[in-house]
Amino acid sequence: MSNGRILSGKEVAKHNSRESCWIIVHGKVYDVTDFLDDHPGGSKIILKYAGKDATDEYEPIHPPDAITTHLSPEKHLGAVDPQTVQKVEVRISEAEKLRLDRVAQRPPLSEILNLHDFEGIAKQVMPEKAWAYYSSAADDEITNRENHSAYHRVWFRPQVMVDVTKVDWSTTILGQRSSMPVYITATALGKLGHPDGELNLTRAAAKCGVIQMIPTLASCSFDELVDAAQPGQTQFLQLYVNKDREVTKRLVQHAERQGIKGLFITVDAPQLGRREKDMRMKFEAEDPSEVQKTGSDGVDRSQGAARAISSFIDPGLSWKDIPWFKSITKMPLVLKGVQRWEDALKAYDLGLAGVVLSNHGGRQLDFARSGLEVLVEVVEHLGKERGLVFPNDKFQLFVDGGVRRATDVIKAIALGATAVGIGRPFLYAFSSYGQEGVECALKILEDEFEMNLRLLGAPAIKDISRTMVDASNLSSHIAPIPGDRLYESNYESMQVARIKSKL
Amino acid sequence: MSNGRILSGKEVAKHNSRESCWIIVHGKVYDVTDFLDDHPGGSKIILKYAGKDATDEYEPIHPPDAITTHLSPEKHLGAVDPQTVQKVEVRISEAEKLRLDRVAQRPPLSEILNLHDFEGIAKQVMPEKAWAYYSSAADDEITNRENHSAYHRVWFRPQVMVDVTKVDWSTTILGQRSSMPVYITATALGKLGHPDGELNLTRAAAKCGVIQMIPTLASCSFDELVDAAQPGQTQFLQLYVNKDREVTKRLVQHAERQGIKGLFITVDAPQLGRREKDMRMKFEAEDPSEVQKTGSDGVDRSQGAARAISSFIDPGLSWKDIPWFKSITKMPLVLKGVQRWEDALKAYDLGLAGVVLSNHGGRQLDFARSGLEVLVEVVEHLGKERGLVFPNDKFQLFVDGGVRRATDVIKAIALGATAVGIGRPFLYAFSSYGQEGVECALKILEDEFEMNLRLLGAPAIKDISRTMVDASNLSSHIAPIPGDRLYESNYESMQVARIKSKL
Amino acid sequence: MSNGRILSGKEVAKHNSRESCWIIVHGKVYDVTDFLDDHPGGSKIILKYAGKDATDEYEPIHPPDAITTHLSPEKHLGAVDPQTVQKVEVRISEAEKLRLDRVAQRPPLSEILNLHDFEGIAKQVMPEKAWAYYSSAADDEITNRENHSAYHRVWFRPQVMVDVTKVDWSTTILGQRSSMPVYITATALGKLGHPDGELNLTRAAAKCGVIQMIPTLASCSFDELVDAAQPGQTQFLQLYVNKDREVTKRLVQHAERQGIKGLFITVDAPQLGRREKDMRMKFEAEDPSEVQKTGSDGVDRSQGAARAISSFIDPGLSWKDIPWFKSITKMPLVLKGVQRWEDALKAYDLGLAGVVLSNHGGRQLDFARSGLEVLVEVVEHLGKERGLVFPNDKFQLFVDGGVRRATDVIKAIALGATAVGIGRPFLYAFSSYGQEGVECALKILEDEFEMNLRLLGAPAIKDISRTMVDASNLSSHIAPIPGDRLYESNYESMQVARIKSKL
Amino acid sequence: MSNGRILSGKEVAKHNSRESCWIIVHGKVYDVTDFLDDHPGGSKIILKYAGKDATDEYEPIHPPDAITTHLSPEKHLGAVDPQTVQKVEVRISEAEKLRLDRVAQRPPLSEILNLHDFEGIAKQVMPEKAWAYYSSAADDEITNRENHSAYHRVWFRPQVMVDVTKVDWSTTILGQRSSMPVYITATALGKLGHPDGELNLTRAAAKCGVIQMIPTLASCSFDELVDAAQPGQTQFLQLYVNKDREVTKRLVQHAERQGIKGLFITVDAPQLGRREKDMRMKFEAEDPSEVQKTGSDGVDRSQGAARAISSFIDPGLSWKDIPWFKSITKMPLVLKGVQRWEDALKAYDLGLAGVVLSNHGGRQLDFARSGLEVLVEVVEHLGKERGLVFPNDKFQLFVDGGVRRATDVIKAIALGATAVGIGRPFLYAFSSYGQEGVECALKILEDEFEMNLRLLGAPAIKDISRTMVDASNLSSHIAPIPGDRLYESNYESMQVARIKSKL
Repeated sequence: MSNGRILSGKEVAKHNSRESCWIIVHGKVYDVTDFLDDHPGGSKIILKYAGKDATDEYEPIHPPDAITTHLSPEKHLGAVDPQTVQKVEVRISEAEKLRLDRVAQRPPLSEILNLHDFEGIAKQVMPEKAWAYYSSAADDEITNRENHSAYHRVWFRPQVMVDVTKVDWSTTILGQRSSMPVYITATALGKLGHPDGELNLTRAAAKCGVIQMIPTLASCSFDELVDAAQPGQTQFLQLYVNKDREVTKRLVQHAERQGIKGLFITVDAPQLGRREKDMRMKFEAEDPSEVQKTGSDGVDRSQGAARAISSFIDPGLSWKDIPWFKSITKMPLVLKGVQRWEDALKAYDLGLAGVVLSNHGGRQLDFARSGLEVLVEVVEHLGKERGLVFPNDKFQLFVDGGVRRATDVIKAIALGATAVGIGRPFLYAFSSYGQEGVECALKILEDEFEMNLRLLGAPAIKDISRTMVDASNLSSHIAPIPGDRLYESNYESMQVARIKSKL
Repeated sequence: MSNGRILSGKEVAKHNSRESCWIIVHGKVYDVTDFLDDHPGGSKIILKYAGKDATDEYEPIHPPDAITTHLSPEKHLGAVDPQTVQKVEVRISEAEKLRLDRVAQRPPLSEILNLHDFEGIAKQVMPEKAWAYYSSAADDEITNRENHSAYHRVWFRPQVMVDVTKVDWSTTILGQRSSMPVYITATALGKLGHPDGELNLTRAAAKCGVIQMIPTLASCSFDELVDAAQPGQTQFLQLYVNKDREVTKRLVQHAERQGIKGLFITVDAPQLGRREKDMRMKFEAEDPSEVQKTGSDGVDRSQGAARAISSFIDPGLSWKDIPWFKSITKMPLVLKGVQRWEDALKAYDLGLAGVVLSNHGGRQLDFARSGLEVLVEVVEHLGKERGLVFPNDKFQLFVDGGVRRATDVIKAIALGATAVGIGRPFLYAFSSYGQEGVECALKILEDEFEMNLRLLGAPAIKDISRTMVDASNLSSHIAPIPGDRLYESNYESMQVARIKSKL
Repeated sequence: MSNGRILSGKEVAKHNSRESCWIIVHGKVYDVTDFLDDHPGGSKIILKYAGKDATDEYEPIHPPDAITTHLSPEKHLGAVDPQTVQKVEVRISEAEKLRLDRVAQRPPLSEILNLHDFEGIAKQVMPEKAWAYYSSAADDEITNRENHSAYHRVWFRPQVMVDVTKVDWSTTILGQRSSMPVYITATALGKLGHPDGELNLTRAAAKCGVIQMIPTLASCSFDELVDAAQPGQTQFLQLYVNKDREVTKRLVQHAERQGIKGLFITVDAPQLGRREKDMRMKFEAEDPSEVQKTGSDGVDRSQGAARAISSFIDPGLSWKDIPWFKSITKMPLVLKGVQRWEDALKAYDLGLAGVVLSNHGGRQLDFARSGLEVLVEVVEHLGKERGLVFPNDKFQLFVDGGVRRATDVIKAIALGATAVGIGRPFLYAFSSYGQEGVECALKILEDEFEMNLRLLGAPAIKDISRTMVDASNLSSHIAPIPGDRLYESNYESMQVARIKSKL
Repeated sequence: MSNGRILSGKEVAKHNSRESCWIIVHGKVYDVTDFLDDHPGGSKIILKYAGKDATDEYEPIHPPDAITTHLSPEKHLGAVDPQTVQKVEVRISEAEKLRLDRVAQRPPLSEILNLHDFEGIAKQVMPEKAWAYYSSAADDEITNRENHSAYHRVWFRPQVMVDVTKVDWSTTILGQRSSMPVYITATALGKLGHPDGELNLTRAAAKCGVIQMIPTLASCSFDELVDAAQPGQTQFLQLYVNKDREVTKRLVQHAERQGIKGLFITVDAPQLGRREKDMRMKFEAEDPSEVQKTGSDGVDRSQGAARAISSFIDPGLSWKDIPWFKSITKMPLVLKGVQRWEDALKAYDLGLAGVVLSNHGGRQLDFARSGLEVLVEVVEHLGKERGLVFPNDKFQLFVDGGVRRATDVIKAIALGATAVGIGRPFLYAFSSYGQEGVECALKILEDEFEMNLRLLGAPAIKDISRTMVDASNLSSHIAPIPGDRLYESNYESMQVARIKSKL
């Protein structure tokens, strides 16, 4: 791609504005003028390095091929003469210093008691933009929170007087062993949270015997993540289907050759969702004076990030594509993002290996129902229409979204799922503590599985039965009547007895 | 009307009290003594100009014919000799200065991400009284908030694997093209929020291809709004029926001649609702000393505003009037404010073109149900009783109230509506940013339609089907049991892991 | 009763302690030592006047015969020689001064917009103890608040296109005309809130054409309240049945002779409820040092107030007493405090004139259901069992508790009630503004009736029909699942667009 | 066990570190090095006494045999020469001083109005760690709070006009008289809250005629508690079944000989639950520097407390053990912790005397349902399957968890329970006020029973019937839809009328 040209630092330095913006990365010069508004991290951070060497800033948060993939070849201007380049001195802001202080003062992992804790720490130690990207969701984030809330509407009916001296929570997923009925689901841009990005997940998964689903939009390259796997370690691949089917075919067949054991085709993202908290964060980060200058320039910067990294995704993907997928790979095919029983039935009838009942962590269509709620209707209707019983080895059901406790997972199993995908909690774990954080998160889940299987009276995963849960209110979507503010402000609350004041 | 008399400024200046109050507007003198307590904006603002020239204050917030319409001819005292009038110097209060600062510091439109944002900005940049008038609703404002809340009880059942490369959200309303299934519904007193009043809506509607419903109580005159329309631009008219049917007949036939394409007869306002937040604001604005002086004068100033502008409305309007309406116009007739299926059925049987299921934005009867909830019963009963299927071209159903997102609109369409009226959000949009604000609001809705139709698997409006939503809890009116304050105050909340303090 | 003895002020002054406590009222000396702990207002206020003249303190808040009724004759020690008595100088506390300031700064009545406002003002201008007595309720005050909340679970189905030029909200209650379907229900100790006590209600009722129910435990004597009535003014009597039936018989027959038109026998108070907020207030008011001294004296002062004024009430009252009541009076008999359909049916079968479905304003059994909820089951079962249709002139249903708006009343009428009792709001009205406050409250209700009957499409009370309300969730007692505090504390709330800071 | 060795204080003093930690208790030397991380109170408090005499610290909070039971004999190193031991001077922290101040300023018992008050006071006067241990529960403490909340979903249908002159709330439990349908249930580690530990309960139970259930994990020894009982006083025993059945057999038969009248076998705790609030408290209490030093030592201290005191419990306990239990004792056998009707049915079929429907106060499996909710399904199914009617003398149902009011108890009786266990409120009562606190708590319950039986129209426990409650929403597990934060932040709340500011 490089054109052999050698540029001087002085020449590059002239292109230091929004009108013409060149940067140097790993000794190569790139013209990023047209890319400024598409940059997932906002234009401001690039403009800071306009005409300069951005390698130190670029390196830790981008996959090696990010710039070459996203910039067309004619923007690759050539090499720079290293002698002629001035190093950029990075100044650390006050806010950043405070953040680094917080990083230094993280509690030790032994004090992390549950998955919520990782989120609480991550919120304080992650760069604000990374936190906004990971935590944000679609529109009013109702579905995002409903995903968690749905689990709270399912209650246990534990059985007692069962010998639970030995309890075993291992299982198989698409025929592969897993130490627990949980897999690490695909999430994008891991390096925003930690320099090792998704490698933290690969390594922790190896140690703890769980399966990682490699994301198409990983910060690390696919091969890096496959190469980091231990012998015998199972990995799945999450796939965004490219408008250019040949690109997809190459990727799928490469993955199969590399030993990937299952292909999860994302079907809930013909267009990537608007996440306003993330968008808002970008405005905050900008220099206000510049914003006002450019606010009326007609450029729609608001959806730049999602669009830039996802413009290749094909909104034309449809049921007609299924035979083609079956023709290019022998891997088990699973549709990720199914949201009603009618579509699960189609997937079954077309001979797929399963479906993930998911709304993309609440990041796509707001007011989509939780996977857990959809699970109940899928089990009911596929039972009625096709006589299927779940969990089912031939056609497996998965759910993801909102899981924070082993009890959540157990509820999904009781309702018919084979396993449950967990995403954000592992992002928060490595953003706070790297690979050790992910291992700790998995260890916490193990402890919770041991405890809760005992208390539920289910010595093994197969012993978890439908009668062990009461899900009768799972599909109740109740919003309380708006409050009577006048009545409430007049009501004087009762108070408990008080310690006498010393005076 | 003017009687040819010429008065001197000195003479006018003597009538500067509550007992005798004259003002000058556009060079004419008016005796407004008896009108003081009926003034929508309160008496205080008039008394400030008692005996003086009020033109600069009057001009920006009144329709040209406001004073001549509301004052009987004998109160029009004649012209004033301009040489003899002293100009009033307007002093700007500290609070007003702060408000103007906030106006200057509005974020650029590019940072407005959704319709909520306009409301958030409007709340800060609008004059308090204008905000109170627009935002207030009936009694405890329960229905006002329920209108929005109702949408939260309807959830999506999206279908996946549908080719959504092309999505189209245009539709027709009463046979007229609209770029989206949304119309700008009628709201009163637009100049309270912006000097151009409803003209902002007319102009933005033209640019974006949507239909404006012109209100009877607009700040701009009907002809101004019709004249501002572009060739081919569709406008509807909202009608308050006058006790004097001849006045109504003239207005309707004038409108039809002017090209209005649909007549929406308001049926939920035989008397205009009490809006206590608005009334309270007026007391706040008054000079406390004066209030105490006049508090016991027996004058009921509390409902002055609504009454003054609405006393012409006929509480005797009934089903018997329908044949007469059909005799005076060929425009499609729609009843605005129907709130139960029995009345929708009558409207259908009487050959009307449709009904708007609406509670007047929560400004009339508190604890009236949301239009969305009524929609479900109307569709069910008109299906059962008359075999109708909705959306239906012959008898169209509309809802308004509480809409903030394209997903809200899509839910109404899925449940059988042809289109949805949006009111306050556009008021907030022009109050914050003028015509550009309204255009931006419409553009945001477009973006949301594109995204959400894709995610729902519906390439066009006609593809939105009843099975795409779960509305089973829509009519649940749940109020949680009053809290146990003692138990709650004793409960010590759990906390996530903490960053260690540096000390 | 007086024994003719004349005591000197000096002698009285010696009895100035908890061990021996005499006080002077209206020139008579009383030994109140044993009564201290039974005093509804607490012992401290009496001890302040131990050995002194308490007339000025006593006079404004007690019925004339209070002290002679509650103290046995042997405690009436005789007259005092007025020459020998030292006047007590009353010192006003800082808190009391602040309260009096607030009284002076009350907003004018013209700014009171609804019944809530009276409560808001009363809370600030009433003496703390009076507020505590009026506002408190049983146990955790769940039923107290549920009474209001129940109305929020009933929604309107208004009909439109009805001629509502004339609306009329007058009705008849037990055959007596009332200007609205509301009566002033019985509440105790009116002088705690205002020196004229229940007379405020009698006078305002006369002016506004509503019916007052005279309470057994009024601060004013029965005859005072009857004498204050205007010619033709209707009054009812609320009756606590005395263990000594002869006392009750005398009272009932005296009332009938005096023109009382209905007898409401309280059946929900065999023992007066514990109201902890009221009890707590008494401890707060005590001198802490004294409390600690006397805290272990074994005296149960906690229920003194309720017990002192209610010890005569007969917990043995039962259905067997009904024939006796019918034998002593021809007044219509109504049971006040019925709380399930089975008891309403018994009352009907025994030939009574009606029942008040009431839980005593939430002051008796906590978790008793609201009268409104009971109303629905009574109407349903008496329809099924006896073919009754409601509202019904022969057997009338009333509800009380929690009413704040005319819409509340209209809901009860739609569900089958003849009229609704309102209590606390009128107490708050006269505690804040005396008789004028009560008149204003009634005027506000009138305005609300006019407006809401119009908006509901019901020109008269008889036009309010069952189909005008949706009460399907009235008996839902929902408590939300306890919140997930960790998840919630981690969730970062979305925010609207912000005005830029000037810096 | 002691080996006769005599050690010098000087020698002991050398073992003053985490690596080798000896302590002196009652003149004996123990090597507690390996026990440090298992100590229920954390390691820090022991390390403070490493090499020193810990008797004064140990004495008040441990059962006499605690150290000999938990340390294996080889760790009992011998006696110490008292002459050679240096006394430890205890320094009181600032926080502790403030706590002691609060203890001194407790309100007198006469101001305690309900069971909530004890909790409110205990929260302020208990040592933080003791509070954390008593109040904490499993995972997110959802079940813990649901236990109380469940009672709020059951409402009363009181009957009136019943002669309630005499009311009697005494009953029998497993054939034993009880002054009320309440027993003191088993809870662990009573000395954390008060030096007399569970003896407070034994003595108060004697005075008030209620039954105490002695816990296996009491701070006082079993014999102490039995010896403290008055002649004729009934006690039950709660049993954790030991892996070594001989130990259990000895304990059970000893108890039967000592006069215990019922054996409650805990079946919901094969492993003791994680209580994170309690765990978190331990980290807080540690010296931060030490924590960081030891945080990575791989030692899992997090569950030390629960594990240390409960490692003997047999997770293999099953239905097969029932015949053996019946063979070793004639005491009535009750299973404590049954959580679904299927298990209650098994217990009945196996001839047991009853079951306690309980989730262990929310301390075991989170999202287990409340005992009250399970009660309804047990009564329904055992009625259907075996024709049983409840309350039933042959097979008694008990519930515990969340009870704070006599009305709660009455609800459980109405739904079929024989009696209700109360735990934490009595712990809080003696932690705040010792034995007198427990007596006061029982007296409060008596007062509430008297009042509420009167108001319910049930003169005796047997008169409480199923029709007296409406429990139709008891099994509704509703979580409201996540809030719309943008809409809510824009909504401007209504306000009541305001007192004018004096300026």
